Amino acid sequence: MAGETTLTIMGNLVDDPELKFTPAGHAVAKFRVASTPRTFDKQANEWRDGDGLFLTVTAWRTLAQNVAESLTRGSRVIVRGALKQRSYEDREGVKRTVYEIEAEDIGPSLLRATAAVTKTTGNGNNGQQQAQQQPTGGYGAQRPQQPQNDQWNTSQPQPQNNGWGQQQNQQTPF
Amino acid sequence: MAGETTLTIMGNLVDDPELKFTPAGHAVAKFRVASTPRTFDKQANEWRDGDGLFLTVTAWRTLAQNVAESLTRGSRVIVRGALKQRSYEDREGVKRTVYEIEAEDIGPSLLRATAAVTKTTGNGNNGQQQAQQQPTGGYGAQRPQQPQNDQWNTSQPQPQNNGWGQQQNQQTPF
Amino acid sequence: MAGETTLTIMGNLVDDPELKFTPAGHAVAKFRVASTPRTFDKQANEWRDGDGLFLTVTAWRTLAQNVAESLTRGSRVIVRGALKQRSYEDREGVKRTVYEIEAEDIGPSLLRATAAVTKTTGNGNNGQQQAQQQPTGGYGAQRPQQPQNDQWNTSQPQPQNNGWGQQQNQQTPF
Amino acid sequence: MAGETTLTIMGNLVDDPELKFTPAGHAVAKFRVASTPRTFDKQANEWRDGDGLFLTVTAWRTLAQNVAESLTRGSRVIVRGALKQRSYEDREGVKRTVYEIEAEDIGPSLLRATAAVTKTTGNGNNGQQQAQQQPTGGYGAQRPQQPQNDQWNTSQPQPQNNGWGQQQNQQTPF
Repeated sequence: MAGETTLTIMGNLVDDPELKFTPAGHAVAKFRVASTPRTFDKQANEWRDGDGLFLTVTAWRTLAQNVAESLTRGSRVIVRGALKQRSYEDREGVKRTVYEIEAEDIGPSLLRATAAVTKTTGNGNNGQQQAQQQPTGGYGAQRPQQPQNDQWNTSQPQPQNNGWGQQQNQQTPF
Repeated sequence: MAGETTLTIMGNLVDDPELKFTPAGHAVAKFRVASTPRTFDKQANEWRDGDGLFLTVTAWRTLAQNVAESLTRGSRVIVRGALKQRSYEDREGVKRTVYEIEAEDIGPSLLRATAAVTKTTGNGNNGQQQAQQQPTGGYGAQRPQQPQNDQWNTSQPQPQNNGWGQQQNQQTPF
Repeated sequence: MAGETTLTIMGNLVDDPELKFTPAGHAVAKFRVASTPRTFDKQANEWRDGDGLFLTVTAWRTLAQNVAESLTRGSRVIVRGALKQRSYEDREGVKRTVYEIEAEDIGPSLLRATAAVTKTTGNGNNGQQQAQQQPTGGYGAQRPQQPQNDQWNTSQPQPQNNGWGQQQNQQTPF
Repeated sequence: MAGETTLTIMGNLVDDPELKFTPAGHAVAKFRVASTPRTFDKQANEWRDGDGLFLTVTAWRTLAQNVAESLTRGSRVIVRGALKQRSYEDREGVKRTVYEIEAEDIGPSLLRATAAVTKTTGNGNNGQQQAQQQPTGGYGAQRPQQPQNDQWNTSQPQPQNNGWGQQQNQQTPF
């Protein structure tokens, strides 16, 4: 993927991450991050909190599983990813658009916390299929992109309600 | 600080972080990160590693201490900060310039690792002085900026060699 | 302002920019940018357009006036700014949230166009008041932030409908 | 290319851009940008200029030609690109490293200037060969990447000194 609109958001998880699996067995985690800028108030000579920015973050595969195991409500994180928009129709048939970050990488902030790090070997699938071949390398810029051709992305109505699969075309999952 | 050139680098620590203290007692950590982009080779139909980017990262105060406790050589990290340049004269009197990232926040990557996170209450000073008042807030965008008026930044010769204090005006510390 | 979530979007204007003035006389321009990432299709061995990202951009003062004079529908631009969210109630009383970029700087892309550049001395006000003092400097990182205490931001009902002033608390202006 | 370290720098051209052509006929432009952050001085209650950041920017093909036609010393620009490092040996045989931005897009700032924009149809080659096929699309995220297999990139000594070709492996061109 080239030409994406990338950004880094630093903030705190509003809730625990939700971990689900697509019908094809790919792990996906979702959570909301709140980021609060500060303004310097000249008159009061002090910093004040500005209006918060809330964004939903989606992570895939191994990253999704590691997020679910490592982060909880309140955790401060650094999220790097691409800003995406997704459209859906609400119950009245009005088209709505939501913005989300599809995460390329996520890390718990060390600003006010320490972290005991343990390498994983998981592949982000729940055993229904083999791990898809991913590029690897010395310093490794492996990217957990959204799997192609997975039911998760299907915009057609599904016969069964599987995880978030059916829900996403009807309303915002968060 | 406004108008800084910010960036996010994702990569691996080339060595263990080095933790030192300024004469005024402020913790500072330094480490190098290697980030490797990948190119898709159409002929071979596979990804190949591109040329690596190596950058020195500087962290201050509590962030510095948490980095030293949490990261080691090989750790994959996400670093958010401002790109800075620093000039010095080498032994032959030739002016050299080095580029560094002054970190705003750092997190261990969850791409292939889990992290057990523990909140800290440290202030990044080694007991020689009280913790400097920092802005706080609900979701907290506290920024561990380089302390003002600390000997670390002095470009005048120092009577004593304290930590990295004297060295930095003469040669690249890394 | 510190701790903002900044990003750069590169794309094309969907419509001509709209220029308005707040009751206090500050210029503000709005336009939508569409950015299209590309995916490499291995089977077809060619690049394909991905799903577009559409974002509303707001510019203030002199930047707003220069945008209105320089850009038109279809112009390719680079926009640097902070991602902001704004909440409002729609006609049914349902709370809606929109995301916008508050521009720090904007430039027409030189990727497929040349530009004849002319320096301006305007202050972004329409004569109702003196130009507000702005920080200046050698290389100048002047930032056209949203003016404080201007009616534009008022969330109270206004007696008169002045430009976008009243509208913004009721529905998305774009 | 994936996993690159991207950044946006806003600043002013220190000199006029230099335009050259590789032996294969690809246009390349280089210029230096100076970006100056500002710090708020609480005691003086005013903004002060911080230490400047100077970076060399490289642009290729049509972007290079448009840069050369549109920008001059002092122009304020927005540059989006990838941070790259390049190593060379100086005259004493000491290995040196320089950091540069390989531009993805560049635009003249509209913060204090207007721009009359004219679309170009040039291909960034000087007639020695056909334009290389580039991905195109509706909103077009064409990227002027560095051409593959061009003499410019050769790290072997060249029999003839062609443009910057030979020079780059021996010393910093800027």
